[in-house]
This record gives sequence, structure tokens and C-alpha cells, in this order.
Amino acid sequence: MGCVQSFREFFDRPKNTNVRLSLPAVCIVWQTAMIILFGVFIRYDEESDSHWTEHRKEANISSDIENDFYFRYPSFQDVHVMIFVGFGFLMTFLKRYSFGAVGFNFLIAAFGIQWALLMQGWFHSLDYTDGKIKIGVENLINADFCVAGCLIAYGAVLGKVSPVQLMVLTLFGVTLFAVEEYIILSLIHARDAGGSMVIHTFGAYYGLAISWMLYRPNLDQSSRLQGSVYHSDVFAMIAGTIFLWMFWPSFNSAIADHGDGQHRAAINTYLALASTVLTTVAFSSLFQKHGKVDMVHIQNSTLAGGVAVGTAAEFMLMPYGSLIVGFCCGIISTLGYIFLTPFMEKHLKIQDTCGIHNLHAMPGLIGGIVGAITAAAASNSVYGKEGLINTFDFEDDFKEMTPTRQGGHQAAGICVAVCFGVGGGIIVGFILRLPIWGDPADDNCFDDEVYWEMPEEEESIPPVLQYNNHMLSKDVTESNFTVEQN
Amino acid sequence: MGCVQSFREFFDRPKNTNVRLSLPAVCIVWQTAMIILFGVFIRYDEESDSHWTEHRKEANISSDIENDFYFRYPSFQDVHVMIFVGFGFLMTFLKRYSFGAVGFNFLIAAFGIQWALLMQGWFHSLDYTDGKIKIGVENLINADFCVAGCLIAYGAVLGKVSPVQLMVLTLFGVTLFAVEEYIILSLIHARDAGGSMVIHTFGAYYGLAISWMLYRPNLDQSSRLQGSVYHSDVFAMIAGTIFLWMFWPSFNSAIADHGDGQHRAAINTYLALASTVLTTVAFSSLFQKHGKVDMVHIQNSTLAGGVAVGTAAEFMLMPYGSLIVGFCCGIISTLGYIFLTPFMEKHLKIQDTCGIHNLHAMPGLIGGIVGAITAAAASNSVYGKEGLINTFDFEDDFKEMTPTRQGGHQAAGICVAVCFGVGGGIIVGFILRLPIWGDPADDNCFDDEVYWEMPEEEESIPPVLQYNNHMLSKDVTESNFTVEQN
Amino acid sequence: MGCVQSFREFFDRPKNTNVRLSLPAVCIVWQTAMIILFGVFIRYDEESDSHWTEHRKEANISSDIENDFYFRYPSFQDVHVMIFVGFGFLMTFLKRYSFGAVGFNFLIAAFGIQWALLMQGWFHSLDYTDGKIKIGVENLINADFCVAGCLIAYGAVLGKVSPVQLMVLTLFGVTLFAVEEYIILSLIHARDAGGSMVIHTFGAYYGLAISWMLYRPNLDQSSRLQGSVYHSDVFAMIAGTIFLWMFWPSFNSAIADHGDGQHRAAINTYLALASTVLTTVAFSSLFQKHGKVDMVHIQNSTLAGGVAVGTAAEFMLMPYGSLIVGFCCGIISTLGYIFLTPFMEKHLKIQDTCGIHNLHAMPGLIGGIVGAITAAAASNSVYGKEGLINTFDFEDDFKEMTPTRQGGHQAAGICVAVCFGVGGGIIVGFILRLPIWGDPADDNCFDDEVYWEMPEEEESIPPVLQYNNHMLSKDVTESNFTVEQN
Repeated sequence: MGCVQSFREFFDRPKNTNVRLSLPAVCIVWQTAMIILFGVFIRYDEESDSHWTEHRKEANISSDIENDFYFRYPSFQDVHVMIFVGFGFLMTFLKRYSFGAVGFNFLIAAFGIQWALLMQGWFHSLDYTDGKIKIGVENLINADFCVAGCLIAYGAVLGKVSPVQLMVLTLFGVTLFAVEEYIILSLIHARDAGGSMVIHTFGAYYGLAISWMLYRPNLDQSSRLQGSVYHSDVFAMIAGTIFLWMFWPSFNSAIADHGDGQHRAAINTYLALASTVLTTVAFSSLFQKHGKVDMVHIQNSTLAGGVAVGTAAEFMLMPYGSLIVGFCCGIISTLGYIFLTPFMEKHLKIQDTCGIHNLHAMPGLIGGIVGAITAAAASNSVYGKEGLINTFDFEDDFKEMTPTRQGGHQAAGICVAVCFGVGGGIIVGFILRLPIWGDPADDNCFDDEVYWEMPEEEESIPPVLQYNNHMLSKDVTESNFTVEQN
Repeated sequence: MGCVQSFREFFDRPKNTNVRLSLPAVCIVWQTAMIILFGVFIRYDEESDSHWTEHRKEANISSDIENDFYFRYPSFQDVHVMIFVGFGFLMTFLKRYSFGAVGFNFLIAAFGIQWALLMQGWFHSLDYTDGKIKIGVENLINADFCVAGCLIAYGAVLGKVSPVQLMVLTLFGVTLFAVEEYIILSLIHARDAGGSMVIHTFGAYYGLAISWMLYRPNLDQSSRLQGSVYHSDVFAMIAGTIFLWMFWPSFNSAIADHGDGQHRAAINTYLALASTVLTTVAFSSLFQKHGKVDMVHIQNSTLAGGVAVGTAAEFMLMPYGSLIVGFCCGIISTLGYIFLTPFMEKHLKIQDTCGIHNLHAMPGLIGGIVGAITAAAASNSVYGKEGLINTFDFEDDFKEMTPTRQGGHQAAGICVAVCFGVGGGIIVGFILRLPIWGDPADDNCFDDEVYWEMPEEEESIPPVLQYNNHMLSKDVTESNFTVEQN
Repeated sequence: MGCVQSFREFFDRPKNTNVRLSLPAVCIVWQTAMIILFGVFIRYDEESDSHWTEHRKEANISSDIENDFYFRYPSFQDVHVMIFVGFGFLMTFLKRYSFGAVGFNFLIAAFGIQWALLMQGWFHSLDYTDGKIKIGVENLINADFCVAGCLIAYGAVLGKVSPVQLMVLTLFGVTLFAVEEYIILSLIHARDAGGSMVIHTFGAYYGLAISWMLYRPNLDQSSRLQGSVYHSDVFAMIAGTIFLWMFWPSFNSAIADHGDGQHRAAINTYLALASTVLTTVAFSSLFQKHGKVDMVHIQNSTLAGGVAVGTAAEFMLMPYGSLIVGFCCGIISTLGYIFLTPFMEKHLKIQDTCGIHNLHAMPGLIGGIVGAITAAAASNSVYGKEGLINTFDFEDDFKEMTPTRQGGHQAAGICVAVCFGVGGGIIVGFILRLPIWGDPADDNCFDDEVYWEMPEEEESIPPVLQYNNHMLSKDVTESNFTVEQN
């Protein structure tokens, strides 16, 4: 810890937020690298290649409709909406950081999905006959998933970092994600269709660790911008919360098994989310004067059920099981916003702008645990013999696997996700403390002005210049009128 | 009526809007009840159960793609968007009721879909061999549909009721809906794929009857908040109107027959909606000074065609038939907003905040009538022999049914929907008049302040002091304070 | 040009923006015409007709899932969102033209799709046995595409024309589009799945030519309304840019070949768009003081990659090829906004409100060229023998076609699109200059006030009545300020 302190002092130089060289340089160089690596490594898979017609005949596939595209593309588009609209706009609740929330979300997601296609491809889709990565719609979904981890981490440092830092955060985040995912899914053979562990737990602890490394003791000074206003809240609500909430069944079912797997994952998620809404409203109302509901909880905690049901969504969790998971998560997440977030900022020096600890970390952990328990309790009578094999992939190397052992593997997966998140976050946090990334001073946090050309303010036009203008607000003429009267 | 009057006096006690006990209590108790009932009754159906692989082989189904999930899930997601984004944001046009419009819409929909799964399940999906309700994606769609009826009713009482009242409205609304739906679809054997009768007519009259029971003679006093502002209108337009308008083809086709049924329903709805837009614009412009278009009409009446084509969407209505239905409904609905809504408020004591009479009640009735006529006019030559049987389900008990008689049954369905709506609404209205639900006083209607923690206001800062500061900040009010001190 | 000048003088009479007769008249008459023409010409095709069940048996189709509805409906809905939300809200960036942007977009799209179904039907879907046009979901997509051309053109004249002019622009635009499309796709046999040439190049030049014809030398006077404000920008960003960006893969794949065609088109578009975001941010930052990013570029140029990959999306462009196309277009489009748009307004007298030259014209041309090159370079080794035939439709009359010649045909397609756009635009521009359409004077451009009933302003509530009101705003403090002055 002494070491960390000395690093902190060393790194605390005056801030320069000019990114005119670094931002274009990073974008152009990395995009060029992507083109070269894609040229060397990435090709279409057999379902998106023009040889499909021939492949179809050879494999005796009766119709084009059995192309994986038709199984997964609608879910892919819903996931895409969650990544770019949902995650982006959930963060627009701040008074003056809407451009940054949506715009940088857009930038890092666009970069991240390319790097994710490569990283995940090397681990999962490498064709050893020709050394190429073969991609199809499932890879696109996985790339979106991978980026989601980084966007969750962005939630913790929202408003406090520069776009260049975000690009670095994403580069390392995607890399760590791909390794962690490979360990959890392939080596440990845990199942995680909705990514409770792989995406949410990892992403949240990655972001929290970075935020801890980037702790700003004097941040209160700019807290005038840290609140929300009526319009920004409505905005975050519609475009963020509701879109995430609606499409979460697609998120959890997007890469589940064809047929009953996708079907069941969608139903479980739908139910867990419905249940969460009621307990969130209940506890939000219970802890406020006069029982008023707090929009911050509605915006965030209503989604916790979707996170927590991620791992077990494709299992036979049973409809009532989903409701119970949602019930608990709505309560835990709301209480987290009320008690834990202030505590963490004050005592643990973790400044968590969007409260990702309550929305992703805790529900993600719960999701992992629910997954482990559900897996351990699986039985032939509930799943059917074939169903058990299909659902848990008890094939090839894992033919001898039993549900109980699978539960243990699931639990091991949780640990890996937390370790990669915390460990990776601390290392990347160190890197991001280097005083070369153009991050804003404490006074300028949460302010779009720093990195965006701002349109002139409607409100800032001196009223004097508006007298000949039909659009002037009548107040002006009114005070005018008062003066005249005087 | 004398009886109603005396009840009114009895019930008019001073208002207390504190819902700190009642709202959490209702949410927690009801959600707990849902968990128990789901535990006892609800299981996966054979397409979402892990026995699907075995079932597939037994039933000789060639591919996973024939799982109902792939037929209906994209439509389900569109319907989901309509329920949570469309209905919610259509009601955000009020100056200061966006939180309430979206937030309470969210709350009651989340509760309603759970109760609907149970109620509709008992009537339609009960497996008599084991006494369980078996659910799949079609049940999710039907639950969303069921909730739509209550959300329509919410439109009539928007801004005038407490969240607890809304929960009660939803509990009874869903119950009535399930019974009414069972009578219309199963007993009477009317067809209603898009729910013109079952959803829109019922929901609208249910809401109007409640609003009539809850009549507030002194509501004008808070009418300063009853209007819209530029931004809230743009918001309601995009998120409400356009999303509803775009996805209505999915709404009307979501539970239609596989194949041509869904295909035709989507085409008919697409055309009816296109036609409605033109006549709405025409009549909105015709009745305004200078031919200016009124956003209220565009926001609402452009959707009337989708409502009115609901019942007949899966019939051979013919493309020009759809255009004619849309043509008429655009006119009727717009005229309703101009003439009927003020008349109803003044003379019938029905205060209809969103004008649901013009958007759902009248077009719903028209839809029922169009359905009856189209069904009665059906013939072997147009439908083909098999097509006629498929489209109208002339099977089993209804083998001997003829199109003419089907037309009569359709007409009977309209009556049932109206009776359930009006009758149910009056009863529920009585219950909601009990002075225990925490509804707001007339002065506090249409105001988010009552039930929501409000963020501080951006606008409350004197512009004069802003000249050196592009951002609005607390310091301003502080200097103000200084002045006063001086 | 002298002729043009004299026309200009002749046409420049005082403006009367009253459309109370013309707008309703046009809407009602045209909609009535649509009903009659639909009655005479349009019927369901065999996949949406109730004879489908019989057809299925005859054609030996094994399952309802092979109905084209299930191949294309999810993509159709995404395209629908792009047309009505994406195009509409991309244009809401102006301070006071949100109603006009979304509302008129809605009006002309609703009319255009009906006229497009007829025009495209006569050229492409006419059943010669009975003289009827048979429509299914693919026709709906094509109608949406056709209207997209007109909406692009609307972007150039946004805020400067009346709704009646827009209806005329659409009537002729759709007509020209259908002819141009028939020549390019059927006669020349060029391929253009994503419409780089047919939709974007044509639409953009059509709009630019009209804008040139309608040049307003004194427009600067109303430039106070030509800018954006913070909230309108956030709005345009979310609802316009992001929705277009996300769903563009559906746009380019919606009418591609079943199976690998749709699959590949989606992948290529996804990649091109990701790449564009990075170069747009880079060049936007590079050309601003302090490296701040300009929201105008993010809103528009990030989409250029989707336009430019339209033609080649279904070809074997290769993932890296898509990245390269996106890379270049982000740069070119951003530079266009910085240098070309001001140049065109000053020197070429083309006032391009939304900068469609940078978003549609240039990327559309690039897309055509990329398509021509990719087609010319196609080979049996890359595509497979059957793949080549499928992808380029080398069948029937075009059995003997070679890739090289196909490249030439593609290039010819570009020329046709440009000629139809410029030529058609000049003619329609002439017609729109007639002083009978109710277009606004220069002073009233970019102002919703002209054609819309405006809600009262929140600020216009007399401050006196607000003193007891938490919602008090500026005015209060202002009268306060007046007092201080006194």
C-alpha cells in the first residue's frame, strides 16, 4: 500500500486535457492494426461463406432457414441495442455528460468488438487447418458480450477519464476478458450463457479496481455536476433502463443452445426481471420520506434480476426459481444504492459513478452462485437423460461429469472472474495513472465541455439580444414589462 | 345515480399521499404470492423444457428451428417494446409527469404480466394430466397483451391516481381480462388476433368507467400542469407514437397462425397504419387556424388504424380493405380529439387524460365490426377450402360453423368486451374511491413531485449570474443568498 | 442558366404558409387514389395468401417456417425502425424543428410506402396471368427502401419547405426511384442489396439538386435557428444515429439471398460501421482546437461505412475489406463536413441542411465503386462455382455473364443513379419553385411554429402564480433581479 501511495504522488502532475494528438493517433494506429490482423486472420465461417450452398448439400441440410443466422440474428440485434443504446444511455443521467456517456460508449464499443473478434477468435474459433479465425453471427454476439464487460467498467469511472484512457481500458479489458472466458468456459467447463460471471462479475470488479486506483480525494468540488436533472433522468430511463430491461431475455438467450435452451433462457429472464421491479419499487419507497420512489433505483436495480439469472437462465431453474432470484436481487441492489455506495466512497475510496457494484458485481456473484446450486441440483428426472447432456454439454472430455461436480466447476468460475477483475483492474489502473492520457482535473469531471465541441446554449443568449425574437421566453418580456411599468 | 352520489360524498375525505407503508406492502405481498402460485402451478411447456430434444424425435420434428420460439420470439420482442416503451412514453407528453408515466407503467406491467400468466394459464394452458400450467413464448406474448388492456385504462386516469390504486386497477383488470378473453375466444369462438375487442375495447371502457367513477369536478385548478411542452412532446412522439406505430404489425401478427396468418396480419396492419397517417394529418390541419398540424393528433390518431385492423388482420381483408379501415379511423379519431373529448369531460363527467376513447375505444369497436363483416363475407373462393378452416379454426366442436354465423359470433364478442369493460370499471372504480389508497388532491394531480424523489432543478438559477459561467451551478444560488444577506 | 434565373425571379412572390386547404386536399385525394389503385392492382402473394397451406403441400415445402416471412420479418422491422425513427430523429438536431423533422418524415414515409408498393410492384411483382401485383414481406422492405431515398433528399431541404412540397417531392421521388431501380437492377443487371447506388446515391443527388433549385440567398437571417442545442443533439444522437448504426446490418442484409447472403451482408456491414467510428472520431478530433470531438461528425459520419458497404455487402468482400471501406469513409465523410459543406453553400449555392452530401452522396458513390471492383475481382476459387452463380444471379438471360463484365455493369449502375438523381431533382425543383406550395419565407425557416400548433412554453407561466410552487423557474429569479435593479 505504501508503494501504491508513492506511485500516486509521483503520478499526480498538473492535468492537460488536450487529446488532439493522442486520440487521433490511438484511433488511427489501432484501426490500422485491426485491418492488418483481420487481413491475416479473419475469414467467413461456413454458414456465411458463399460455399454455404455446397456445404448445405454435403451436410444434408434441408433448408436455408437452418443457417445459424436465422437462429441468432434477432437476438443479436437485441443485444446490439443493449450495448449501444442501453449501456450508453443508462449513463446519460448526469446533468452535463450525455455526449460523453453515449459518444465514448460508442467509440470504445466500436473498437472493442473488433479486438474481441480477434481475441475470442484465437481462443474459440481458430481453424487449425489453415490458421484462420472463421466468423459468423455467433462471433458477433460474443464480441458484443465481450465489450459489455468493458462498458460496465466504464460505468464506475464515468466522467473521470479521458477517451484515450477509455481506449486503453478497453484494449486490456477485452484481452483479459478473452483469457478469463477461455479459462472459465473451456478449461473449467463452467456454463455461463448470460454471462453473470464472465461478463458482469468480471466487468464490475475490473471497473471498481480501476476506480480505486484512480481515486480522486477532492472530487466533491465538481459534485455540482454529479447530480441528475429531470430531463436527463427521463432520458436515461427510457433509452437506458427500459431498453436493457426489455431485451435482457435476448441477452441471456442469444448464445444458448438452439431450441429449448434459447426458449427457456428467455422465459427465465423475463420472469426474473418482472419480479425485480416490484421489490425495487417496494424498497425504494420504504427508505424514503413519504414513501416517494427514487428514480436512481428504478433506473438501475430493476435490471439486477437479469444479471443474476444469467448463468442459470438456460438451466431448469423453474419459473418460480426465476421469480425468487429476481425478488432477492431487487432488494439487495436497492439496499446497495442506499447504504453500500456511500460507504464504499467514504471508507474504501472507491468512487463508483453509476453504482455498478449494485447493478453488476453483487447480482453477478449471486448469479454465479445460483448457477452453481442449480447445476449441482440437476437430475435426470428433471432434465431427462438427453436434456442433461445437452444442457451441460456432458460430451467428449466431459462425458463422465456429474451435476454435483459441475456445481463445483461453476463455483470455481466465479473465483476466476473475480480474480481477473480485481487483478486486471489494479494493473490497468496503474497504467491509467500515468500522466500522459489527458484525463480531466477534479474540477472538470462530469463535464462534456472538456472533450466535446459544445453547441451554443439556448439559455445563455443574453436576453437583450432576444427582444426581436419571437422565440424569446415571455419571462424576458415580462421583466421588461415590469421595468417599463416602473 | 343517487347511490353513486352518496358514495361520492362519503368517500371524499382529505387526501394523504403518503404511500410509504401501502406501496411496499402491496408490492412485497403480491410478489410473494406470485412466487408461491408459480411454484404450485407454472412449469415449462414441451418446447421450452429440456425434454424438447426427446419430444422432437418422438414428434418427428426435423429441426430445432421449428420450435415455436423461432416463429414468435421476434414478434414477442416487438410487442414487449410496445408495452414498455410505447405505452409508457406515449403518456410522457405532460409537462411534469414523465416519471409517473414511464415508471408506473413499468411497475404495473411488471406485476401484471405475472398475474396474467397465471390467470390466462388457468383458462387456456392448464395441463389436466398434472394440474400445471405449461408456458412458452406464446404465453409471454399473451401476458403482454393482457397487460396492454390495463395500460390503456391507465391512460384515462393518468396523473390522477396513486401507484397503489394502479396496482389494484391492474389486479382486477387482468382478472377481468382473462375471463372476458376466455368467453370471447373460447366460448363464443370469436377470432381476435390483434385484440381490437379483447384488448382495446375492453381496456378503453374499463379505464373510462373508472375515470367516470373517480370524477374530479375541481381538476381545472391543476390544469397548469395538464398541458405539454415542446420537449415532452418530442419525447412522447419518438418513444411512444413511432415505436407503437412501427411495431404494430408485430402486435397484430404475434399470435396469428404460423405461415400465411402471421404474414398477412403484418401486411394488413402495415397498410392500415400508413393510410391513417394521411387522414390524421389532413383533418388535424383542416380544423386549425392556418392549417397548422396539432401534435396531439399526430401522437395518437395515427395509431387508430392499427387498433381498428386488429381483429381482421389475419383475415383476407385485402390490401385495399386495410387502407379503407385506416382511412376512416384517422378521420374518426382526429375528430374525436377535437370534438368528443371536450364534450365528454363537460357533459359526461369523463376526464380522459390521454384521450383513450379516441385511440382505443372507437377504433376498437370499429375493429370488431370490421372483423364481423369480414368474417361473415368469407368464402371458399377467396380463402380456399383449407384456408377457410385454418383461418377461422373451423375444427372440432366448430366443424359445422359457417362464415355467416362466425360473423354473428364476432359481433357477440364486441358486446362482451364492452360489458366487461364498463361493468368491471364501475366496480373497480367504487373500490378505488375508498380513501385509503393515497391518491393525490386535485391540486397535486399531474405532478411527479407527489410520488417521486425529484432531482434538483436545472432551471432554478437566475440567468444574470450565469454570464461568466456556461454551466448552471449551485454557487449561483449561493451568491443569491449572499445578496439577501447583504 | 439565364432561363433558371428568370424563372427564379418569376417565382419569387411573397410567401403564404397557410396550408389549410392544400395539405388536407393533397392528403385526402392521394390517399383516396391509393385505395382505388390498391383495389384494382394489389393482392397477397402466395406466401401471405390463405392458399399458402395448399401451396405448401404442392410445392413440397416441409414447414411453415420456410415461409419468407420468417426469413425477412426481423430484418424488415429493423429497417422500419431505421426509416421512421432513424431518419426522422437524425434530423431533430435543429433547435426548433423537431416536430417538423419527425412529423413530416412520418407523413411522407407513410404516403411513400403506399405509392412505392404500386410503382415497384408494376415493375417487379406484376403477375401477368391476372394483371395483379402480389405483395409479401419483401415488397414491404422494398417500399421502405424506396422511401428512404426520398427521406435522404428531405435531409437537404430540411426546414426550408412546406409539407405539401414534401408530398410532391415524395410522389416524384418514388416514381423516379422505381424507374431507376428497374433500369439498374433488371435491365443493367447490377446487384445492389444495400442500395449504395439505388438508394443513397440517387436520393442524395435528388435532394441536392432540389436544394440547388430552391437556393435561398438570404437564408443566413434565420440562422439563429439553424444551430443545435445540447438536448436536441443528445436526442438526434440516440434516436437517429445509434438506431441507424445498430440496424444497418439489417438494412444491407434485408433483401440479400437467403442463407449465406444475408449472413455475410450483416457481418460486412457490422465491421465497416465499427471501423468508421474510429476514423470519424480521429479526424473530428484532429481538426478541432484542443482535440475536442464535434457531435455533428459523430452523428453523421459514423454511418458512412454502412452506406459505402451497401452494394458489396453480400459479395465476398472479406472482413478486412469491410474494415478498409469503413476506414476510408469515416475520413472522407468527416472531411466533407469540415471543408465541403461550407464550400458548397458558398460557391455552388447548394444549401445542404443535414449534410447529406457527406453522409449519402460520397459514401454512396464509393459504395458503387467498391461494388464494381469487388464484382470484377470475383472468382470461382473464392466464391465456389455455385456460390458465384448464386451471389451474382448468373442465371437465365445472364448465364454467360462473367465477373469482369458484371463489374462494368455495376459501374454503369452508378451513372444511372447519379443521372436520375440530378436530372430528376432539377425537374422536381422547378415544380417546387411554383409559388403555390406554401413554403416559408427565409425568416421562418427551421421553425416549427410555421406548420405546427405549438404547446405553450413552460417559461410563459406568469411568475406571480408560481411563488408557492416548487416548479418556479427563471422568471421568478428574473423579476427578483428586476427588483434588485430598482
